[in-house]
Amino acid sequence: MKNWVFTFGGGKAEGTARDRDRLGGKGASLAEMARLGLPVPPGFTISTEACRHYYSNDRQLPDGLKREVEASLETLERLTGKSFGGKAKPLLVSVRSGSRESMPGMLDTVLNLGLNDESAKALAEATGSLVFAYGTYKRFIQNYAGLVMDADPSIFEDIADEMAKKPVDELTASDWRDLIDAFKQAVLDEMEEEFPQDPFDQLWGAVRAVMKSWMNPRAVTFRSLHNIPAQWGTAVTIQAMVFGNMGEGSATGVAFTRNPATGEDTLYGEYLPNAQGEDVVAGLRTPHPLTKAQNGNGELTPMEDAMPVTFQELKEIAKRLENHFREMQDIEFTVETGRLWLLQTRDGKRTARAAIGIAVAMAEKGLISKTEALRRIDPSSLEQLLHPAISPDVERTVIGRGLPASPGAATGEIVFTSEEAVEAHSKGRKTILVRPETSPEDIHGMHASEGILTIHGGTTSHAAVVARGMGKPCISGAGSIRISTVKGTMLTGGRTLEAGDVITIDGTRGEVLLGALPMVQPELSGDFATLIGWADDIRRMKVRANAEPPEEARTARDFGAEGIGLCRTERMFNDEERIRAVRRFILANDIAEREEALNAMQAMQKADFLHLFEIMGGLPVTIRLFDPPLHEFLPRLGPELEHTAQSMGIDAERIRQRIEDLHEINPMLGNRGVRLAICYPEMIDMQARAIFQAVMEAGEKTGEKVVPEIMVPLVAYERELKFTKDRIDVVAEAVMAEWGTGIEYLVGTMIELPRAAIRADKIAESSEFFSFGTNDLTQSTFGISRDDAGLYLNEYLRKGVIDRDPFITIDVDGVGEFMQMAAERGQKTRPDITLGICGEHGGEPASIHFCETVGLHYVSCSPYRVPVARLAAAQATLANGADERA
Amino acid sequence: MKNWVFTFGGGKAEGTARDRDRLGGKGASLAEMARLGLPVPPGFTISTEACRHYYSNDRQLPDGLKREVEASLETLERLTGKSFGGKAKPLLVSVRSGSRESMPGMLDTVLNLGLNDESAKALAEATGSLVFAYGTYKRFIQNYAGLVMDADPSIFEDIADEMAKKPVDELTASDWRDLIDAFKQAVLDEMEEEFPQDPFDQLWGAVRAVMKSWMNPRAVTFRSLHNIPAQWGTAVTIQAMVFGNMGEGSATGVAFTRNPATGEDTLYGEYLPNAQGEDVVAGLRTPHPLTKAQNGNGELTPMEDAMPVTFQELKEIAKRLENHFREMQDIEFTVETGRLWLLQTRDGKRTARAAIGIAVAMAEKGLISKTEALRRIDPSSLEQLLHPAISPDVERTVIGRGLPASPGAATGEIVFTSEEAVEAHSKGRKTILVRPETSPEDIHGMHASEGILTIHGGTTSHAAVVARGMGKPCISGAGSIRISTVKGTMLTGGRTLEAGDVITIDGTRGEVLLGALPMVQPELSGDFATLIGWADDIRRMKVRANAEPPEEARTARDFGAEGIGLCRTERMFNDEERIRAVRRFILANDIAEREEALNAMQAMQKADFLHLFEIMGGLPVTIRLFDPPLHEFLPRLGPELEHTAQSMGIDAERIRQRIEDLHEINPMLGNRGVRLAICYPEMIDMQARAIFQAVMEAGEKTGEKVVPEIMVPLVAYERELKFTKDRIDVVAEAVMAEWGTGIEYLVGTMIELPRAAIRADKIAESSEFFSFGTNDLTQSTFGISRDDAGLYLNEYLRKGVIDRDPFITIDVDGVGEFMQMAAERGQKTRPDITLGICGEHGGEPASIHFCETVGLHYVSCSPYRVPVARLAAAQATLANGADERA
Repeated sequence: MKNWVFTFGGGKAEGTARDRDRLGGKGASLAEMARLGLPVPPGFTISTEACRHYYSNDRQLPDGLKREVEASLETLERLTGKSFGGKAKPLLVSVRSGSRESMPGMLDTVLNLGLNDESAKALAEATGSLVFAYGTYKRFIQNYAGLVMDADPSIFEDIADEMAKKPVDELTASDWRDLIDAFKQAVLDEMEEEFPQDPFDQLWGAVRAVMKSWMNPRAVTFRSLHNIPAQWGTAVTIQAMVFGNMGEGSATGVAFTRNPATGEDTLYGEYLPNAQGEDVVAGLRTPHPLTKAQNGNGELTPMEDAMPVTFQELKEIAKRLENHFREMQDIEFTVETGRLWLLQTRDGKRTARAAIGIAVAMAEKGLISKTEALRRIDPSSLEQLLHPAISPDVERTVIGRGLPASPGAATGEIVFTSEEAVEAHSKGRKTILVRPETSPEDIHGMHASEGILTIHGGTTSHAAVVARGMGKPCISGAGSIRISTVKGTMLTGGRTLEAGDVITIDGTRGEVLLGALPMVQPELSGDFATLIGWADDIRRMKVRANAEPPEEARTARDFGAEGIGLCRTERMFNDEERIRAVRRFILANDIAEREEALNAMQAMQKADFLHLFEIMGGLPVTIRLFDPPLHEFLPRLGPELEHTAQSMGIDAERIRQRIEDLHEINPMLGNRGVRLAICYPEMIDMQARAIFQAVMEAGEKTGEKVVPEIMVPLVAYERELKFTKDRIDVVAEAVMAEWGTGIEYLVGTMIELPRAAIRADKIAESSEFFSFGTNDLTQSTFGISRDDAGLYLNEYLRKGVIDRDPFITIDVDGVGEFMQMAAERGQKTRPDITLGICGEHGGEPASIHFCETVGLHYVSCSPYRVPVARLAAAQATLANGADERA
Repeated sequence: MKNWVFTFGGGKAEGTARDRDRLGGKGASLAEMARLGLPVPPGFTISTEACRHYYSNDRQLPDGLKREVEASLETLERLTGKSFGGKAKPLLVSVRSGSRESMPGMLDTVLNLGLNDESAKALAEATGSLVFAYGTYKRFIQNYAGLVMDADPSIFEDIADEMAKKPVDELTASDWRDLIDAFKQAVLDEMEEEFPQDPFDQLWGAVRAVMKSWMNPRAVTFRSLHNIPAQWGTAVTIQAMVFGNMGEGSATGVAFTRNPATGEDTLYGEYLPNAQGEDVVAGLRTPHPLTKAQNGNGELTPMEDAMPVTFQELKEIAKRLENHFREMQDIEFTVETGRLWLLQTRDGKRTARAAIGIAVAMAEKGLISKTEALRRIDPSSLEQLLHPAISPDVERTVIGRGLPASPGAATGEIVFTSEEAVEAHSKGRKTILVRPETSPEDIHGMHASEGILTIHGGTTSHAAVVARGMGKPCISGAGSIRISTVKGTMLTGGRTLEAGDVITIDGTRGEVLLGALPMVQPELSGDFATLIGWADDIRRMKVRANAEPPEEARTARDFGAEGIGLCRTERMFNDEERIRAVRRFILANDIAEREEALNAMQAMQKADFLHLFEIMGGLPVTIRLFDPPLHEFLPRLGPELEHTAQSMGIDAERIRQRIEDLHEINPMLGNRGVRLAICYPEMIDMQARAIFQAVMEAGEKTGEKVVPEIMVPLVAYERELKFTKDRIDVVAEAVMAEWGTGIEYLVGTMIELPRAAIRADKIAESSEFFSFGTNDLTQSTFGISRDDAGLYLNEYLRKGVIDRDPFITIDVDGVGEFMQMAAERGQKTRPDITLGICGEHGGEPASIHFCETVGLHYVSCSPYRVPVARLAAAQATLANGADERA
């Protein structure tokens, strides 16, 4: 015999908290609370299976449901002592949806069901309040007509206007009856159907409406955004109504078992006296605090003072629920004339800081295990803690939006050039650098400013990558903002701002805000350190950082990086003086000039590597050979070029000519990476020599053995790598001969092109490690330029063509298959090959999970993401282990 | 017992023509001729195995070789009646290399070996000529010292100068002896080693030198360019010398059994009286024609008149050899005092026209099979026949070089703008359009000019692709040429040319030539038609063409295309007036303007498709939806923009703004193909409607059923295709409803991104055909932009990092694996899926062979390559069949 309906109430329930699949979140929590003997209005839940039956049988409800519902209603009448549609003590019920996962506000709910002309009259008599009884009846008709009968809400407007002419308290029973009749007539006129008087008709109408709402467009969209399968269906919970709006002794509210902002172990929440739950949601009245401690200015009486006994009862129940569920709870309650009723309990949302505090506290108390504590923290949320953030209670005037390119918030005066940023900084003024886009020449300006806002570029543009490395907030691709660097103005959201005007940027959300806003500073509490320590005990993958300048490398170590996974050597020339050396190389007239430039570059590189090796103290350091196209190092056409020509004493025409020679239509697919190395092998020699000399000197200085990992970018042909490795080996031999000692070093490559993935077996013959460059691998697998993709990828997301931006989360089906393939083929040739990832995905939790399944040895990410990656890697280890046991 | 040495001569030989592997080409042909009883100077060949032994045993010759050589020399002495190093009738020999495949001039040869002081004297006595005997001895010393002893040739210069003071005929025996002594002394001084007098020492030195030359740098390079394995090794043929320089009755020459330019069945060639073979090669004397028929101006006596008897003998032998080898022969001969000797015979090189004529004639005579005739023609060579070419005998002044972007040659006045080209054309003047690069706005200018020369861009640049479609010669990427369109000058090879100066471009070779040169016009002979007909009988794959304008489609049908494999709809807007419609769409202010523009575009497209369907008369037509980024249709910044703004009555600022909005850093990876379709789905509707309406009208007009194949470009996600197909289906339903009849149509996609290849199983769910877009697939697999790759791919070829440009021949290891993968995965989902290729590779023979192995149903290429593809497809069928039987 199939069982469609599950009752709860009176200290018993057919079901537990574990039955979310059948009973939905709400039904399951009510059942569990009923079993615990907590004061829950009795009721019953129609299972999700009935909903599934409804959709797979042309919207027919299952046989037998009617009989079971009727039997359950009889139980309900018995438990409440009221009668459904009754003339004396009428039983009113709510009919609520209940999905397995919370879908707040997406599905329909019908309240006060059971009211008709007769029961309304009875309710008025029983409560002694016309306003309460008929007001509730009126709301029910409106609600029901709209949700169940699909009536246009506007049909009641005229009648409501009419009624507003007389104060509501002065309405007589006869006035109320006229009003109700007018409402019912409006329904009949509009829908050509009577508003149902039979409470059973009402009930079945509402049940169908709730099930139907599972497929309404906003629910469908929500599910696709949150990956909730349509097949799950919704449960329908029918529960005796309780009323928080029955006078002074009544109230409704929400309680958190702990402070959701800080995690502090005290009851926290708000309530409204003499109100229904909807009033809290509608926000028309300001809710009161629950506790005295919460009561900042003392204007609104806390529940603790207003209803001390009920408050105590709530407090005890809250603690009991938290201990029972072993998780901070978010509880909905109603007080009906002095009596406390619980309507829902669920895991409470909280800030990252609170989440960590709660999880660590519970694990230390033994309520949950350490692994459970780790599982409960969303790794991405840690980033909130590592950067300053705008104070949460502050009003925000958003004047523009862009991509959240680097998290954190910053306030400063607008400057439109890097020079202005540097100048202002030298005078102690804080600035936000606003540029169409940034280039290596802006590095000083970026350093000198508090944050960066660019009009063009995606989340992996120059500005974004550099800002993340620096830990500075950045918004990129704010395409709706128009700037004129010449006039020194910025036009956004209808306002014109000028250089010197103060703005705040929120790089976590991608919002540009007017004026200066108060900030919350990062504070890595002891709980944070404790939790990450537990993560370190568990994770299999190592975490390295992508970093070049000493300060970044130091930040990375402070955040727990276990090495450098990507040192982008070209970024070491991001400096006016150093760029000049690269330019001299590019513009050299003859071999002598070229060698002179190379010698200068070599000296700089050696010093940098030495510094890096010292900071990392023996930890692995992966150094990538020069990657970008050379034209990136030449000045832009225009006054900048003349300036460069003058300061270098070179004919401007020659520079212009060289810019033209080096111009590329698609620079991303151009002469860069190993291609440069093959065209200018002297660059390989220069860099290899700088590395090996730094290894020797660092070894002498620190006593630690340094084993550099030299990484060749953009390899497609196995012979490209062979060519480069051969040159590196020759240089190594020479340096070893000069110093009279040996060097251990590794040579490997990035896997960042589909051809490299497919030829990984051959490439592994010359490669001692692979590092997946998933930025470029994504670009080439899809044939999509990150720099230009923002616009149409958003259109794709909007139209449901894709679920996730592949530049944020690894595209498992495509890019992921290449990674899998490369790992397998590489290991076939060289079973002990080291596998890592150094693309932006290396710091993104979902991608880190995928990396675990591929069996990578480490992930590498920007310094500020290292803690995120440490936690995500631990979760990935746990998830993968669990899978194996399953 | 191992046999290292194989003799020939006296009507017998140890070996045949089939022994090329062991005896090399020369040794095998000599053996075969000896067996046929033809007059061959006797000799013997040291097999390639000895050479392999030499290299795998630290350059030691094998045991037993000495004994076998000595025995063979005795045989040689017996056959010639002379003695090696003898004092009376000295036996002189040549020591020649012999590879399995011809490596002309790459390996070393030693002639006249066996001469020493005594045998020279004997030779002088025997021939009665001091000059002959000592001149030969002198040459031998020079030759031997250089090749065998590694002496610098300059050491003999002073002595030679000294000798030149007296006429050579007046030198006495004593003068000669002094000279020889001086030569020998020079060797001793320089090399600290005596010139060897012992002929056996000479012989072994020469044998080693020939083997050693197998690894000289130029031979290594040649082998890598021609894919000849180093392991093959060279044979060494030692043969009795005969002399064509022994006076009036002597001569040396080369004979082709047919005319190598036309294929005509007459003896053809040239000879030099009283000369050695080297004199012909050195080109110091003008050779005489062999036949009277060849003797154009009658200045030089033909052999037919000078030596009628020997000529007859040669003619008969030539015919016999051709019939024997069933292939046109290239024969080297020497006449020594009236006696004819054959020194070599091999398959003769010939023009494409001659090759076809010969193969067809031989097949029709039954000498070879039709499939053998097909196998013998290099498909690429057919292109020579389809375009005008520069007359082969003309002197060329090359003033610049670029990529051979579209074959054929053309002459005209230089113009630097399309407007000038159009204007000159209207006045009946012929021009060559010289541009930095071309864009759709240059189409009229390209049409109006005879040929196109661009400074930028590769072989798949706009200029190259369009020119190939038009069948016009084009050179692209001529980066060493500097032009100033403003000044109207072009600087190349040190010369400054101006607009109006006449140049000739050779698009087949990529050469820019000064002045007007005489041309050979294409002439598709009956033999050509016959051969291609045989190919059609055999090939499995169909051949379609990439074509849009009616004239191209007609050319394609004339060349035998069996459908259109790629109609690039965007190219149908390559016209000033039509571009304007696209611009109106891009620049539309509101929906009404946009719809108006779309309606105009739709009318144009419908007319185009109708025309195409009519021309193709029921053959399949694959129509690709709009592909390029929209910014390609906007004018360039500058005066052009103002002009456009004026003529369209649109504010220039608005156009500038839109150009900026649409700007992409990497347009190749930008918003194009299906991405555009998803951003602007109204484009899909417009194109689908135009197609279906044209299908209806074409059906009514022609009575032929038209089944269009609608192709969606640049798909990476299966859902992109689904989205587009759904819209196409909706339009189809609507048009069918309007007309009241059904339409058959296919929807498919290009596989041109690695992700599409890997997801082909999923994509095939919505795709009824796949067409491999190997241009883009190569770009994305490698992450290489075709437009920019020229420079570094050349560097790769030069440094041996790659063997072949992957944009010319499919990269089988990478791109090929993706094609294989996509074919297999697509067929798994949809076993009857149609597979084709429409990238540039579709017309390239080696790539066509690969397509056959993947099992594609058709290849599609530019109209002028259709005949090439028909032949290559037949060869591929034959090769694949042969593989299966093997």
